Amino acid sequence: MTRIAICGAGGRMGRALIAAVHAAEGVQLSAAIERNGSEFLGQDAGELAGVGRLGVSITDDLAQVDFDVAIDFTAPAATIIHAGVCQRLGRGLVIGTTGLNAEQKAELAALSAEQAMVYSGNYSVGVNVSLKMLELAAKAFGDSVDIDVLEAHHRHKVDAPSGTALMMGEAVASALGRNLDEVAVYARHGHTGARERQQIGFQTLRGGDTVGDHTVFFFGEGERVEVRHVATNRANFATGAVRSARWLASDKTAQTPALYSMQDVLGLS
Amino acid sequence: MTRIAICGAGGRMGRALIAAVHAAEGVQLSAAIERNGSEFLGQDAGELAGVGRLGVSITDDLAQVDFDVAIDFTAPAATIIHAGVCQRLGRGLVIGTTGLNAEQKAELAALSAEQAMVYSGNYSVGVNVSLKMLELAAKAFGDSVDIDVLEAHHRHKVDAPSGTALMMGEAVASALGRNLDEVAVYARHGHTGARERQQIGFQTLRGGDTVGDHTVFFFGEGERVEVRHVATNRANFATGAVRSARWLASDKTAQTPALYSMQDVLGLS
Amino acid sequence: MTRIAICGAGGRMGRALIAAVHAAEGVQLSAAIERNGSEFLGQDAGELAGVGRLGVSITDDLAQVDFDVAIDFTAPAATIIHAGVCQRLGRGLVIGTTGLNAEQKAELAALSAEQAMVYSGNYSVGVNVSLKMLELAAKAFGDSVDIDVLEAHHRHKVDAPSGTALMMGEAVASALGRNLDEVAVYARHGHTGARERQQIGFQTLRGGDTVGDHTVFFFGEGERVEVRHVATNRANFATGAVRSARWLASDKTAQTPALYSMQDVLGLS
Amino acid sequence: MTRIAICGAGGRMGRALIAAVHAAEGVQLSAAIERNGSEFLGQDAGELAGVGRLGVSITDDLAQVDFDVAIDFTAPAATIIHAGVCQRLGRGLVIGTTGLNAEQKAELAALSAEQAMVYSGNYSVGVNVSLKMLELAAKAFGDSVDIDVLEAHHRHKVDAPSGTALMMGEAVASALGRNLDEVAVYARHGHTGARERQQIGFQTLRGGDTVGDHTVFFFGEGERVEVRHVATNRANFATGAVRSARWLASDKTAQTPALYSMQDVLGLS
Repeated sequence: MTRIAICGAGGRMGRALIAAVHAAEGVQLSAAIERNGSEFLGQDAGELAGVGRLGVSITDDLAQVDFDVAIDFTAPAATIIHAGVCQRLGRGLVIGTTGLNAEQKAELAALSAEQAMVYSGNYSVGVNVSLKMLELAAKAFGDSVDIDVLEAHHRHKVDAPSGTALMMGEAVASALGRNLDEVAVYARHGHTGARERQQIGFQTLRGGDTVGDHTVFFFGEGERVEVRHVATNRANFATGAVRSARWLASDKTAQTPALYSMQDVLGLS
Repeated sequence: MTRIAICGAGGRMGRALIAAVHAAEGVQLSAAIERNGSEFLGQDAGELAGVGRLGVSITDDLAQVDFDVAIDFTAPAATIIHAGVCQRLGRGLVIGTTGLNAEQKAELAALSAEQAMVYSGNYSVGVNVSLKMLELAAKAFGDSVDIDVLEAHHRHKVDAPSGTALMMGEAVASALGRNLDEVAVYARHGHTGARERQQIGFQTLRGGDTVGDHTVFFFGEGERVEVRHVATNRANFATGAVRSARWLASDKTAQTPALYSMQDVLGLS
Repeated sequence: MTRIAICGAGGRMGRALIAAVHAAEGVQLSAAIERNGSEFLGQDAGELAGVGRLGVSITDDLAQVDFDVAIDFTAPAATIIHAGVCQRLGRGLVIGTTGLNAEQKAELAALSAEQAMVYSGNYSVGVNVSLKMLELAAKAFGDSVDIDVLEAHHRHKVDAPSGTALMMGEAVASALGRNLDEVAVYARHGHTGARERQQIGFQTLRGGDTVGDHTVFFFGEGERVEVRHVATNRANFATGAVRSARWLASDKTAQTPALYSMQDVLGLS
Repeated sequence: MTRIAICGAGGRMGRALIAAVHAAEGVQLSAAIERNGSEFLGQDAGELAGVGRLGVSITDDLAQVDFDVAIDFTAPAATIIHAGVCQRLGRGLVIGTTGLNAEQKAELAALSAEQAMVYSGNYSVGVNVSLKMLELAAKAFGDSVDIDVLEAHHRHKVDAPSGTALMMGEAVASALGRNLDEVAVYARHGHTGARERQQIGFQTLRGGDTVGDHTVFFFGEGERVEVRHVATNRANFATGAVRSARWLASDKTAQTPALYSMQDVLGLS
């Protein structure tokens, strides 16, 4: 039984992680951490997550608690501190925090060279499988097809295209040796002229409460291939993070210190 | 048996019309017209269209041939002349020509006030059914949903969005009392802010040999409705024009002179 | 402000209705009813529904409370009693209960002849809009297309096809004057022979936590039209029931006693 | 410039192959073969295929003509004869013929052990890329998802599901170590009970002139992945066969005699 500590336990993602640990086999919540001064300190983690009392109170110091692997979806500065704790204690760390600057990334690289960690911008198993399929398809099709990325999200999303859409475009561009900055097209309006083969188009729908819907089209002559990922709720991110924690605790590969990706966890790299 | 004359018989659309008349029941090709000087004059219309000899030679004057209804997909000036011939002879006319100016439209209105004609920018039955469904859905949903239009066409198309996409957006806007010019959004890139309810978004895919693919999304809370039209070849336009010709020749409504639309032909108006 | 009573307040649908009333404009929860002996009696309706204290305690007799329109998703026997109360008091009733027998339906017909009520097997606005669009499309296409219905639901659903898929098939069959029992095809396997035009096919996907996904295909020559409804959570049923309640309280049509449908509420009949 | 011989030049597929050779770079039609007694003997291959005179007359003996690689979409007995000719002459062969019996397959295996040949049941690049993606996805998801296959074809197709749908199901079953015969489900109607994880469902739409449309769904909790292949005309099969011929003539791998698949040609094996 792998004992899991959740950092950032009081947030929306933290609660989803507590519920996912509770639902998964082979893992068990042993600690739940919030920042010093948080209103959630002292509360029962299970009650906070809506899965019933788990007997794990929320505390504020990862260095003081008992765990095998920590999962951290917090903020860059806190994540670096937690990575240091894990390196010192010899514990695995699964990181979902985004927005690290160059210095923080360098620090993370140094710490993970001594202690295995997983870092991903997206813990959805489906998204990671899709990225790998896109790489495979792009290589096999080469320059014989036109490639566009379509995404849809809820009406409240304030930017476009989504980070996942860009990851998909990057996977395709990289497999084809194209520079995404040079070939990405974000709008088609008015007289556009005929499409160029190198283009990778991004088109964006916004509406309702759409959680996340991404399709990559490979348009050929006489045929078309589509790879689509539909997220129907946010639980799948938590599930993938817990799967990563289990992998860190049990997979032979993970015994070698390194900064692993979800592609490694899924055996796709 | 309704006798049909095809104007512009040598062009791609003209040949598709000859084939569609040949395939349909209750109609028969009686004349095929091309402009004076055309290389096609004197050829057999059926052989030109690839459906075998029909015994109808291509000639250059609609006023000299025998027919009940003419179908005209040519150019504005020629169409006006043909409309005049039909009005004088008391024959129906189905018009698929685009790009008429204000003066030509006025002339057409005057001629059709004395002789029933059909005029449409798109003779696909499916597109016209879709337009009517969109009007119905927009009225029933009102301002409770977000509406976006997605279209895909082949890599050679030089403008965006397609005319059909704009017709769909116009159908929705008009049903909701919105001015499409004010609410249409053609690009989403970077910091867009949250979506406004009034927006009607147009997004455009380009690739391969896609004939035409249009979807209108009604995004609500907890649900979504999609109306999609997929064109797989151009035959459907010819089929709809022939259906219009049959309607002009036989439907009671068509006995009253007027400029009818495909919505009238389909009983959707 | 229309005062709403929710019957069956403690169930999953009852709680969704309380939340939907709380979220909607122009309505206000004035009473919440459960059956005699229910564990929920005396609890605050808002707290039970997870929307915070509303100051409305759950009680067990609709005849004793104050309301303009009641919404009832309970069981046939209870629904008939509540319909009697509403008829006596001159209050509107929105009914989502299924499984009424012939006698109960007759009783409901009699009561609603004296007091306006709404009765529907599906309160989703999107499903009802889709049904109306299907009727329109079927009539316009006539026998010129092949029609199939595809549905997808979660892995736990124990029957196929879904009730909504059958409603859609029925809408199409009825518009075309076909008897669904005679033309429905539920399986295609092995040597099926060519498809007959009259057939209406039902095909069924099952997997994951899919809430509900229905598409009706109109396959023509050279084109295809699709009408799709995707349910992403169950809130949309509650929203439609509350819209019906508001309609009963304010629409001129609803002043005439009758058993109305969601099609009436949406102005689609 | 690789010189290509087309066997079965007069058939629908043969003509498509002639056109594809004509359109492709690096290849050139050098011979076109029909069976002894064929009405097409002596005709110009290009004129027959509708691409204009090519100066290549149709003859009846592959052993007498000049070529580097032959492409054969004929019948089993003829194919075995052509394979023998190619083995004797040391020429590559691309085979699209289906329906070989066990003896013929053994003969082909023996001949290809001495002369490189390509054999595939489906030469569409997109289908082959899809099959490889399905294998990858099935392995990464393992038993964490429900898998269904949906296909659509034109109204004249007399069997179900399609051979391509079965190939897709087989790719998934094989990757997961399941026996497709045991887990395939071809119909869901009435009381089906909850879905079992091991099931692979096949569902089938039929209508209009749909060329071929296949989707494999991986339904998880909170997410879904779809891999879809849409064929819009038959040219893509001819294109893939010509790509295979070019690969036989130029790729290093193909210098080793063996019976290769499209997966080998595409570098996916």
